[in-house]
Amino acid sequence: MKKHVVIVGGGFGGLKAAKVLSQYPELVDVTLIDKRNYHLFQPLLYQVATAGLSPADIAMPIRNVLSDAKNVTVYLDEVKAVHPENNSLEVTSVAAKYDYLILACGASHSYFGKDHWEEFAPGLKTLEMATEIRRRILMAFESAEKVADMNIQKEWLTFVIVGAGPTGVEMAGAISEIAKQTMEADFRNISTAHTRVILIEAGKKVLGSFNETLSSNALIDLKKLGVEVMLDTRVTDINSSGVTFSGPDGREEVILSRTVVWAAGVKPSSINSTLNVPLDRAGRIIVSKKLSLEKFPNLFIIGDQSHFEEDGGNVLPGLAPVAIQMGTHAAKNIIRLIKNEAALDFKYTDKGQMATIGRKLAVMEFKGIKARGMFAWLAWLLVHIYYLIGFKNRLFVLMQWTWSYLTFSRGARLITKRDWKDT
Amino acid sequence: MKKHVVIVGGGFGGLKAAKVLSQYPELVDVTLIDKRNYHLFQPLLYQVATAGLSPADIAMPIRNVLSDAKNVTVYLDEVKAVHPENNSLEVTSVAAKYDYLILACGASHSYFGKDHWEEFAPGLKTLEMATEIRRRILMAFESAEKVADMNIQKEWLTFVIVGAGPTGVEMAGAISEIAKQTMEADFRNISTAHTRVILIEAGKKVLGSFNETLSSNALIDLKKLGVEVMLDTRVTDINSSGVTFSGPDGREEVILSRTVVWAAGVKPSSINSTLNVPLDRAGRIIVSKKLSLEKFPNLFIIGDQSHFEEDGGNVLPGLAPVAIQMGTHAAKNIIRLIKNEAALDFKYTDKGQMATIGRKLAVMEFKGIKARGMFAWLAWLLVHIYYLIGFKNRLFVLMQWTWSYLTFSRGARLITKRDWKDT
Repeated sequence: MKKHVVIVGGGFGGLKAAKVLSQYPELVDVTLIDKRNYHLFQPLLYQVATAGLSPADIAMPIRNVLSDAKNVTVYLDEVKAVHPENNSLEVTSVAAKYDYLILACGASHSYFGKDHWEEFAPGLKTLEMATEIRRRILMAFESAEKVADMNIQKEWLTFVIVGAGPTGVEMAGAISEIAKQTMEADFRNISTAHTRVILIEAGKKVLGSFNETLSSNALIDLKKLGVEVMLDTRVTDINSSGVTFSGPDGREEVILSRTVVWAAGVKPSSINSTLNVPLDRAGRIIVSKKLSLEKFPNLFIIGDQSHFEEDGGNVLPGLAPVAIQMGTHAAKNIIRLIKNEAALDFKYTDKGQMATIGRKLAVMEFKGIKARGMFAWLAWLLVHIYYLIGFKNRLFVLMQWTWSYLTFSRGARLITKRDWKDT
Repeated sequence: MKKHVVIVGGGFGGLKAAKVLSQYPELVDVTLIDKRNYHLFQPLLYQVATAGLSPADIAMPIRNVLSDAKNVTVYLDEVKAVHPENNSLEVTSVAAKYDYLILACGASHSYFGKDHWEEFAPGLKTLEMATEIRRRILMAFESAEKVADMNIQKEWLTFVIVGAGPTGVEMAGAISEIAKQTMEADFRNISTAHTRVILIEAGKKVLGSFNETLSSNALIDLKKLGVEVMLDTRVTDINSSGVTFSGPDGREEVILSRTVVWAAGVKPSSINSTLNVPLDRAGRIIVSKKLSLEKFPNLFIIGDQSHFEEDGGNVLPGLAPVAIQMGTHAAKNIIRLIKNEAALDFKYTDKGQMATIGRKLAVMEFKGIKARGMFAWLAWLLVHIYYLIGFKNRLFVLMQWTWSYLTFSRGARLITKRDWKDT
C-alpha cells in the first residue's frame, strides 16, 4: 500500500522534497500544505521592497510548479499544530493523518521581545511586508516633497536599517541607489541626493557570516554608495519619531527618521512549540543526523525551521542551498524507510555565500574563492536568475534587470494602499 | 508674470494637459495633484484582476512621466473641495490658489444606491480593487480544491459578472480562459473546466455601445468561451451566498456563487458636489463647448468627470481618447486665455472603440470599419501597447502577452493578503 507523505511549507526545502517524492508515484502519495499559494524566492524580496521587481516576478504558484507531479496534491491551508505521537496534524479546514511528515515552515522575524517595534520597523519576510516597505520608502519621498518645514523634510529623507546581514546590506545599498540615481530628476522641492541612509549593526562588522576581508570590502562599498554604517551599536527603542540607539561608547542617542526597516533577528515557526520536542535557544527544532527526530523517525524537519549540527559543532545557517539539500535528503530518507532500508546521515555540500551591495558591487565566497566588485555582482546575478524557479520568471527578471541597469530606472514604483475599498 | 495652473488627477486627461502645458514654461507654472503616485492604464486593469499582468506593468509613477517637464510640480495629495468663487482648493496638507484649474478626477463605481453590495461584488477601478478581485478569483479555485461538499464546491466554481460593457465582457472571457486553459492541470480534486462563468446584463445586448452586428458577434464569441450570458436581467440583491436577479419574465431567481464582480454603473468624483455648479443626472459636471464653465471660464473639467454634449446632443463617453483630446484642448485654451485670445470650442475626433473577449477574439469599430476575430484582437493588442505610457511598460507588456499567448500561462497568480503584519 502506498504511504502518505505530508509536507508543510512550499519554500525551497518543501518544494524540493515534493519534486523528489514525485518520482516515486508507486510508493507515495504526497500532500503539500502551504498558507500561501506561491513559492517565494526570498533572496530577491528586497528587490520588491525597493521597487525593482514586481511581486509576481519572484513568486510562482506552487500548484503550477508541481503541475506535472501527479501524485502531489497541493492545499492552500494553515497548519495549527502537529501531534507526532499519533501521526496527525491540525489544519484549519481538516484534520490530517500522515505516515511521514516533512516540516519546512521556515522562519519569521524576531524583535527580541519588543514586538511593538514591528509597526514602526517592518521586517522583510513576506510579499505583503515587502510592498508595505516599498510603500513607506516611496511615501517618504512624496511627503518630503510637499512639506515646508525643513526639519520634517530631513526626517522623511532619513532611512534607518537595523541589522547588517545580507538583507540589511542589500536594503541599504538599494535605497541609497534609488535616492541618488533613480529619483533625483523627478522632484522639484527636494534633492533626493541628500537622503541619509543609516545602517545599524550590533556586531563589529557588516555581513557577519562572511570572511574578514570581504566584510571590510562590503563596508567600503557601502560608504561609496553614501550609506552611513554604525557598527557595535545597539537599538534600544523604535517609535514613530525614530530610533534610539547606544553606540560603542554606551551613550544613548536618537536618530529622527520616519522610515525604519528591520533586518535583524529571525524566529522560527510557531508550530515548533506545539510539538513538545527539544528546541534550541532560537526556537528551532533540533534534528538528528538523519534530519528526523530520534523519538519520531518518520518526522523530518528541514530548512530554517531546523537546527542541524555538522560534525565539529557548526550549526547550518538559514540559506536556500541548505534547505534545498535538506529537502532532497529528507525525501530520499523517506523512500529508504519505505523500502525498509536504513536512513542516511545528511552532509551539507557548501555552496558558499554571496551578497549584493549595489550596481556592480557585491561580495562572494565559494570553496575558498573570495571575490568582490563587478565579477561577484555578475556571479550574484547569474546564480539568482538560475535558481528562480520556472523559466518564465528567470527570463523576465533578467530582462527587468538589464533594463534597470541600462536606464537606472525602477519598474515598480507603486504606492498601493492597504485597503481595497477606499478609492 | 507667470500664471499658476493646477491640474487635479493624473489620468489620461490630466497627464496630457500637463504635457501640453509643459511646453510653455515662460507662461505657466503647473501643479499636478493626484491621490495616487502613479498613472494607471485603466483599460488593462482587468488583466491585473485576472492574473495576466502585474500592477507595475500598467502603472507609471506620474512624477517620472513628467520628469522632464520642469515647470510641473507633482504632489501626492487629496483634494477635498474646490472653491471656484475665490480660485482656491482645499488639499489635505495645504490650501492652494490657482489662476486656472483643470479637474480631471475620473470616476468610480456606482452601485445605484446599494453601496453594501460592494463588499460582495467589488468593482474594477483601482489597482487595489484589481488585486482584491484577483485574490478572490484565485482563492475560489483553492477553496473548491479542498472542500469535500460537492454543492459548496460548485458555489466556489461559479463566477458572476454584473454588467456586459467592455470591462464585464473582458472579465468574463478572461475568467473562462483561466479556468478552462491555464488552471486545468494544476488541480487534483476539481476539474476547473467545469467552472461556470455567468455574465448578467440589464440591457438587451452585450457591449451596448457597439453596433448591433458586433454585439451579436461578441455574444457568439462569449458563448464559444463557455460564458453564460443573461440579457435583459436585473440584479435585485447581492450577498455572501450569491446573486438574486429577475430575468426577462420578471421572476426572481438566485445564483449561488462565492465570487461576484461588479462591472456596471459609474459614478463621478465626490468633488463635484462641492462645486455648487450644474451636474447631470449621473453627477458629472456639465461643461461648455470650451470645456469650462460659463460662470468660471478659468475652470476646466475634462474626461469622465465632465458631461460634454456634441452638436446634435450626443454626450461623449468615458473613454481614454476622449479624455486625452480634452486634456490637450483644455491646456491649449488656457494658453489662449493667458495670451488674451478667445477660447475655442472642443470637437472630438472619433477614435472608435474596441473590446477584447479572449485569445484571438475581439471586436472593433473605427470610422465605419467593423472587425472581429484575430484581426480585431491584434489591433486591440497594438493599440493598447501603443498607448501604454513609457517605452518600458510597452515592451514588457508585449513580452508578457507573447509569453502568455505561447504558453497559455498567467504570470501573476498571487494571492496576497490585505494586512502586511500577519505572516
